[in-house]
Amino acid sequence: MRGTGVSQGIGHGPAYVLTASVPEPPAGQTFTGEAAQEKERALAALKQVAGALEARGDKAGGEAREILQAQALMAEDPGLIVGVKSLIDGGLAAPRAVYESFGKYRDLLAKAGGYLGERVADLDDIRDRVIAQLTGQPLPGLPVEAAEPYVLIARDLAPADTALLSRDVVAAFVTEEGGPTSHTAILAKAMGVPAVVACAGATTIRPGARVLVDGSTGEVRLEPSDDDVATAVDAQESRQAAIAAVRGPGRTKDGHRVPLLANVGGPGDLDPALANGAEGVGLYRTEFLFLDRAQAPSIEEQEDAYRAVLEAFPAGKVVVRTLDAGADKPLAFLKPSAPEPNPALGERGLRMFRLHPEVMAVQLAALAAAAQGVDAELQVMAPMVATAEEARWFAGACRAAGLPSAGVMIEVPAAALRADRIAQEVDFFSIGTNDLSQYTFAADRQVGALAGLQDPWQPALLDLVAATATAASDNGRPCGVCGESAADPVLACVLVGLGVSTLSMSATALPAVRAALALSTLDECGRAAHAARGQATARHARAAARSNLPGLAELGL
Amino acid sequence: MRGTGVSQGIGHGPAYVLTASVPEPPAGQTFTGEAAQEKERALAALKQVAGALEARGDKAGGEAREILQAQALMAEDPGLIVGVKSLIDGGLAAPRAVYESFGKYRDLLAKAGGYLGERVADLDDIRDRVIAQLTGQPLPGLPVEAAEPYVLIARDLAPADTALLSRDVVAAFVTEEGGPTSHTAILAKAMGVPAVVACAGATTIRPGARVLVDGSTGEVRLEPSDDDVATAVDAQESRQAAIAAVRGPGRTKDGHRVPLLANVGGPGDLDPALANGAEGVGLYRTEFLFLDRAQAPSIEEQEDAYRAVLEAFPAGKVVVRTLDAGADKPLAFLKPSAPEPNPALGERGLRMFRLHPEVMAVQLAALAAAAQGVDAELQVMAPMVATAEEARWFAGACRAAGLPSAGVMIEVPAAALRADRIAQEVDFFSIGTNDLSQYTFAADRQVGALAGLQDPWQPALLDLVAATATAASDNGRPCGVCGESAADPVLACVLVGLGVSTLSMSATALPAVRAALALSTLDECGRAAHAARGQATARHARAAARSNLPGLAELGL
Repeated sequence: MRGTGVSQGIGHGPAYVLTASVPEPPAGQTFTGEAAQEKERALAALKQVAGALEARGDKAGGEAREILQAQALMAEDPGLIVGVKSLIDGGLAAPRAVYESFGKYRDLLAKAGGYLGERVADLDDIRDRVIAQLTGQPLPGLPVEAAEPYVLIARDLAPADTALLSRDVVAAFVTEEGGPTSHTAILAKAMGVPAVVACAGATTIRPGARVLVDGSTGEVRLEPSDDDVATAVDAQESRQAAIAAVRGPGRTKDGHRVPLLANVGGPGDLDPALANGAEGVGLYRTEFLFLDRAQAPSIEEQEDAYRAVLEAFPAGKVVVRTLDAGADKPLAFLKPSAPEPNPALGERGLRMFRLHPEVMAVQLAALAAAAQGVDAELQVMAPMVATAEEARWFAGACRAAGLPSAGVMIEVPAAALRADRIAQEVDFFSIGTNDLSQYTFAADRQVGALAGLQDPWQPALLDLVAATATAASDNGRPCGVCGESAADPVLACVLVGLGVSTLSMSATALPAVRAALALSTLDECGRAAHAARGQATARHARAAARSNLPGLAELGL
Repeated sequence: MRGTGVSQGIGHGPAYVLTASVPEPPAGQTFTGEAAQEKERALAALKQVAGALEARGDKAGGEAREILQAQALMAEDPGLIVGVKSLIDGGLAAPRAVYESFGKYRDLLAKAGGYLGERVADLDDIRDRVIAQLTGQPLPGLPVEAAEPYVLIARDLAPADTALLSRDVVAAFVTEEGGPTSHTAILAKAMGVPAVVACAGATTIRPGARVLVDGSTGEVRLEPSDDDVATAVDAQESRQAAIAAVRGPGRTKDGHRVPLLANVGGPGDLDPALANGAEGVGLYRTEFLFLDRAQAPSIEEQEDAYRAVLEAFPAGKVVVRTLDAGADKPLAFLKPSAPEPNPALGERGLRMFRLHPEVMAVQLAALAAAAQGVDAELQVMAPMVATAEEARWFAGACRAAGLPSAGVMIEVPAAALRADRIAQEVDFFSIGTNDLSQYTFAADRQVGALAGLQDPWQPALLDLVAATATAASDNGRPCGVCGESAADPVLACVLVGLGVSTLSMSATALPAVRAALALSTLDECGRAAHAARGQATARHARAAARSNLPGLAELGL
C-alpha cells in the first residue's frame, strides 16, 4: 500500500486498527425487572460516558478538551434522555433504547444537510460508548501503554483519539483520510512519529499484522521480512548519522546563510525547538492563549506569555502571528458576523480584527510591552491578509503600538499576486504554504481525497512562492516560509533557490533540513527551483529538483 | 445608506422589512383543560407547519423545494414531539412547550460547533411558525400580492423566502448580508429587479418608510422627495433609451466582435435569453437535471434536455458545463468520500467525476448524441479544474465520447497561474470569475461581510483574468468569461481589453453590456484594462477604467 508520507522516519510494529464497532443491540430487545431500574441503568451509563469524555479532555487539555467537552454535552442532552426513558417505558431494554433514541437524532442530523453529517460521527461515538458500558464490552479507545509500540491505523484521527498517546507506544500513524497539512500530519511531526496519510484501504489491514511504515516515501508494507525491516532501519540509521553530523546555524554548502527557525504553538514547544537547534521562532501561534475562555486574556497575561518566548531566544528573532480565530476555531468573545458555510473562506485572522479592533489593540500593546528590555528581535505579523489596503491598516496599528517590525503572512493567493504592492506597506513577509496551497488549488487541507492537489510540490504553488520572494527582494524585504513545506529537506532547498530567506518548521524537522542545505550549494538550489517550476506535475517537479541536488544522496533522499 | 449594487436599475416603494419575530411565550405558561387536548393541539400545529412548508416547496420547485422539505422533516422529528408531550405533561402550555423543546435542540446544535449554527436559523423559523399557529398570530412570510410593489429588506434572503415572488410585487431587494455573487444577487438579476447587498443597518429601516434603491451605485435613500425619485427615474429612463438604441450582435464601436452569450440554468431561461438577443449560451448549468433524484437521469432524458438548448440557438454556440455537484449541493448518487468542513474547497465538479466516472461517461455520451443533426456548435467544459493533468483527463474523455470541442472553466487560481500548460490540453477556456474571486481572496461568496474582497474589480482578480486570456491567445484558444463580472457594463469593456473573446451573463444584463461595448473602441477597452490593473484597490480600478471609457457617459455610468 502507498499513501502520502507526511512525517519522516521508519516505524514498524503490530497493526492496531482503530474502529469503533460496537454491535447494534437486537431490535425489539426487552428487559426483565422494573422499568424504573432499567431507566436508572441507562442514565448512569450516559452520565458515566459524559464524565469519562470530560476527564479525558481535561487530561489532554487544549483543543482536544474543547472537542471532548462538546461531546460530553451531547451525551447528557435532555431531549435524548427523554427519548431513552420513553422507549424503556415502551418495553425496550436500555441498550436498544439508547440505540434508537440516538438513531432519531442521527437521522435528524444526517437528513438536515451536508454539514451536519460531521456531527453524526460524534453521536455514534457516544452511542457506542454508552452501549459498550451497558453491555459490559470494552470501551472503544486506544491503549496508552504497549509491550511493543504499535502502528496506529484509522480512517482518520481526531485530536481526541491521539491526545494521550506518546512516541513510546505508537511506532507510526497510517490513515486513509488526511492531507499533508492535516492535524494528523502536524501532530505526528510534532511527536516525531513517522506518518502516512491518504493511504487507501489501510483500515482493511488485519489487526496484529506486522506493518512497516516509511514516512518519507509513503510506503506501507505488510508482513515485511526481517531483512526488509533491517534494510529500512539501516538506511534510516545511516541517514540519521549523516543528519547528526551537521550542526550550527543554517547555511548552504557554499556558506549562504538561511536562518532555520521553529514553528511554536505554545510554551511546551520551546524545549524541542532549542534541543533541535532552532535559531529563533519563525511562527509563534498565539491562539493557545485565547482558546477555551469567556474573554480575551488580559494584557498582563499576554505580555508574560510573549516574554517567555522572547527570553528563550536571546540572540535570535521571534516572529509572532497575531490571533488567527474564525468560525473554524470559534471563540466566545470573537464571533463572525454570521454563520459560515465554509469557515476556511470566512472572517478569519485579520478580518476578525477588523470586526474587533479592541482585541488587536490589546494584543499589539502586550507584544510591545513584552519586547521591552529583552534582547531577541520581535517581529509581528497578521494572518489572512489579501490586499495592500489591509496590510497598510495592520502595519499602521503596529507602528502606533510602538512595535519595531510589522509583516504579513502570504497565504491568500491575491496577496502573492500583489506582493509587490504589499511589500511597500510592511517590513517582511512570511509565506504560509499550507493555506496558500489550500486556496490556490481550492482543496481543503482536511480532505484526504484531495491530497494530490495539496502537494506542496505543485508547480503553481512554486510559482506563487517565486512571485512573492521576488517582490520581497525587489523591495529589500526578507521573505520566510513557515508552512510545513519548509520541513521537506528537498523542498527546503528549492524554496531557498526561489529566493526565500528563512525557513521555519516543526522543531523535529530542523536537523534534516539543516543537513540538506549543508549538502547543496546556493547555485544548485537555484537550478533545482528552476527545474521544478518547468514541470507540469508535482511528481515531476520533485524529481527534477532532486536531480539538481546531488548532495542529498547522502541523506538517502 | 449604501451597500453594493448587484442588480442594476432604480426601484422605489414602501419598505417591507422581513423579520421573523414571534414573541417568546411567557416562562411557566400553563394551560386550562386536558393535557391530552393540549398535546393534540401542539401536534396539529407541528403537522400543519410541516405541511405548509412542504406545499410551499412543491409550488416553488427546484432547490427551494429541497430546503423546505428538510425543514418540514425537522418539524415532525419524533424526538422533538416526545419533548413537547413530556413538557405538556409537566404542565406547560403548548406554545411554551414547543418553545422549550425546540430550545433544547437549538442548544445542542449551537453548542456542538460552528457549522451547526447554520441549522439554528432553520429551527427558529419552524418554532416561530408553530408558535404563531398556536397563538393565532400571522405566520411569518412575504406578501405575494401588493397594491404597490414594495422594497424587500432583510438580513439575508434564502431561496425559500423569494421562491414565490415576482417583479410585480417587489420593486427592489436590499439585504445586510450577501455579496455580489450571492444567491440574492443572482436571483435579483435573473428577475430583473434592482438589488443592493451588504447594506449595513438596512433592517433598522421602519416598515412602510419610502425607500429609493439604486442598483447601479448601491445607494439606498430613505424618504426621498418626489424630485429625487423623478430625477433617478429620468436618469434611468434615458439610460434605458440609450441601451434600447443598440441592437444586433456584440461588437465594440470600431467593430471588434465580442459574441454576447447567456448563462442558462434550465429550460426556463431560454426565452429570456432569446428575448434579450443572446447569440448563444456561454454557460449551460446542467445541475437542474440531477437535483432531487435518487439516481442520475437516463442518457435519453439528458439527450432531450441538451438538444432543447441546442435547437434554441441554431446559428450560435452552446457551451455546456458538466455536472458541478459536491457537498454544497449533495446528490443521492454522488457523495464525497467523507464529510466536508468546507464544501467550496471539497470534492466538487470534475473531482466528483473522478470518483464517479460512470456519471461523466453518461453525460458526455448524451451530449454527443444531442449534437447529432443540429446546427448549433456544441462546446463542453468541466468545472473545478486545477491542473493540466486534470484537463488532459477530461479532454481525453470528451474526445473518446466523440465530442468536437472540450474546454475547462478557469475558476481555481492554480488553473489561471498555469493556463499556458492547460491551454495545450483543451480547445477553449471559460473564466468563472465568481469562484475564481472566492478562492483568490479566500472570501466566501455567501459571506456579506467579505463583499469588498469579492468585488470583481479587485486588481489581483484582473491579473489572473489577464494571465488566462494571454495564455489562451498565445495558444490560439478562445477565452470567455461566464462569471457575473461580465454583467457589469464597465467591467465588460475591461474584460474585452484584457483579451477576453466572449462574454456570458444573465440574460437581463445583455442589453446594457451590448450598449457599453458599442460606445467604446477596442483601444479604449485596452487602455481601461491597463489603467485598472495599475491601481491598488477595486474602487480605484473602476474609476481608472471608467475615465478611459468616455462613451459610457451616455449610459449614465
